[in-house]
Amino acid sequence: METLLLNPAAVEESAQVPAVVDAVEAAFAAYARGDAQMPAKSYIDLPQYDGDFRSMPAYLEADDWDGAGIKWVNSHPSNPEDHGLPTVMGTMIYSDPETAVPLAIIDGTTLTRKRTGAAAAVATDHLAVADATSLGLVGAGVQARAQLDAIATVRDIETVVVADKDPDAVDAFRAETGDEFEVHGGSIADAVDCDVVSTTTPVRDPIVPREAVGDHTHINAMGADAEGKHELDDAILLDAKLVIDDHAQCTHSGEINVPYAAGTLGDEDIHAELGAVVIGEASGRTDDGITVFDSTGLAIQDVASAHVVYEYAREHGVGESMELVGTDL
Amino acid sequence: METLLLNPAAVEESAQVPAVVDAVEAAFAAYARGDAQMPAKSYIDLPQYDGDFRSMPAYLEADDWDGAGIKWVNSHPSNPEDHGLPTVMGTMIYSDPETAVPLAIIDGTTLTRKRTGAAAAVATDHLAVADATSLGLVGAGVQARAQLDAIATVRDIETVVVADKDPDAVDAFRAETGDEFEVHGGSIADAVDCDVVSTTTPVRDPIVPREAVGDHTHINAMGADAEGKHELDDAILLDAKLVIDDHAQCTHSGEINVPYAAGTLGDEDIHAELGAVVIGEASGRTDDGITVFDSTGLAIQDVASAHVVYEYAREHGVGESMELVGTDL
Repeated sequence: METLLLNPAAVEESAQVPAVVDAVEAAFAAYARGDAQMPAKSYIDLPQYDGDFRSMPAYLEADDWDGAGIKWVNSHPSNPEDHGLPTVMGTMIYSDPETAVPLAIIDGTTLTRKRTGAAAAVATDHLAVADATSLGLVGAGVQARAQLDAIATVRDIETVVVADKDPDAVDAFRAETGDEFEVHGGSIADAVDCDVVSTTTPVRDPIVPREAVGDHTHINAMGADAEGKHELDDAILLDAKLVIDDHAQCTHSGEINVPYAAGTLGDEDIHAELGAVVIGEASGRTDDGITVFDSTGLAIQDVASAHVVYEYAREHGVGESMELVGTDL
Repeated sequence: METLLLNPAAVEESAQVPAVVDAVEAAFAAYARGDAQMPAKSYIDLPQYDGDFRSMPAYLEADDWDGAGIKWVNSHPSNPEDHGLPTVMGTMIYSDPETAVPLAIIDGTTLTRKRTGAAAAVATDHLAVADATSLGLVGAGVQARAQLDAIATVRDIETVVVADKDPDAVDAFRAETGDEFEVHGGSIADAVDCDVVSTTTPVRDPIVPREAVGDHTHINAMGADAEGKHELDDAILLDAKLVIDDHAQCTHSGEINVPYAAGTLGDEDIHAELGAVVIGEASGRTDDGITVFDSTGLAIQDVASAHVVYEYAREHGVGESMELVGTDL
């Protein structure tokens, strides 16, 4: 029994963006229909190393496939300075639910980048205006690139406005994407006036003011991933049709966690979870107002993306394989 | 950054039994001292496949090392008949707690076998009579062999009595171990009259009667791993100094789960958790009576065994390695 081993290059090759977006959309639908299992993330806190580990297991059943797996992921904010390593790394075990055979061990770092972009694309597809052509990016890091790649599969993005306090990051982003899109550097106000916006910064004091946001802008708020983090003025969240990925995760550590804890924003201000919008149980874009998607990242997104990566890799001979796990009776 | 890939043969070679027993003992000690983190196992239930997945994350700090990791393990009882695959398989990610680098991906099937034997050896070392020379085995499967290998590192076992309803299993066991030990086939009554006993069967109706157990016998009750399973007469548990690996797991799915649920056996009948015995907070063997160790298997045992396996493999060049996870900043 062979297990595929898929390193960053193999995941990059196999995570075909339109297929990942489709699979992640199917995962949100399965979650809303009750066809997914996603035990709460469990944490191991290691204050002595300024870090933690998180276990993210899930199973989901889409229309024509199902999948199970677990991502073991960390957050060690001192890693870059102390060890020259990323803050967040991940390793994913993707398994056949029927037999439990581990089909693949997958670089979870690359996978996380892809599935996070895909969630924004799913939200954008349901919440942005249909004729959106401009994308604003607040933050020009690796996730900004994943946002552009995924969102461009659901809207005909022509113009991209990138805002980052580091001009070198903006230049690097333009160099990477300028052949395919019309890419400008700009202020945060310039970026958030676009049809679609993705914010991907780790800030604790909001950097997007209410008055700068365009009249019909859809914002994917991707940056907040811990208590105390938020990127958007509370007034934006309160004025918007607000869609979240998961109530428990978003109120705990998503974009809304600070105003929710303060009581400034309550359940009555939340329109729906994304899955409900995907299956038509709640409305998506209906008028000209602002919409916001609060994304924290769900284990079902990892399983869905791993499904795409594994199937592509197997079909196209990507990656190495080995007899990793004993199957003697 | 390289990750070691350790398949069954690599784990078999690297899981040096005395070192695994020492590390598992250190893990129980760390757990009792509060130097371990072990979130509750989380389950994904898949009745449509007669199976489930379990996530077992843990961190522990021993005197001169620490380790973190997660085992993703399943139970699919129909696997042997339907797919020619084992009921239980496992995959372990072993990580550096300081940086979260995944140091190794390890065959969790072989690792589980080793760490389960090691737990019995730790219990035997603290609970069996010092001059024990005979080991009784109820059940002659692969775990019986792991029990013998591990227990022989803590007591001078000379004679082994093996009881199994399948005579071929007994013959195979004798053929494998007969060079090193004096191995006899026998009845359950013959086996449980030995100084040390390990029971490794999945039965739901107890097969070990009270009157057959030797006066000073120590029993490692290894078989029960789910609600409704138990191997020993209630009277044995009630008459014994009863040591468990973990209160939550044992009362839920260990040897004691059935009488505990029925109210036949209560907390007052439990002497201590094994960790408390290891660190001297509770007594081990003190007189001539019966002792029982109820083992369900803890995630800290997996991390401890993975530590031994990884360090040995790295030092001796065992296994393959690859750049599995992205570490670009």
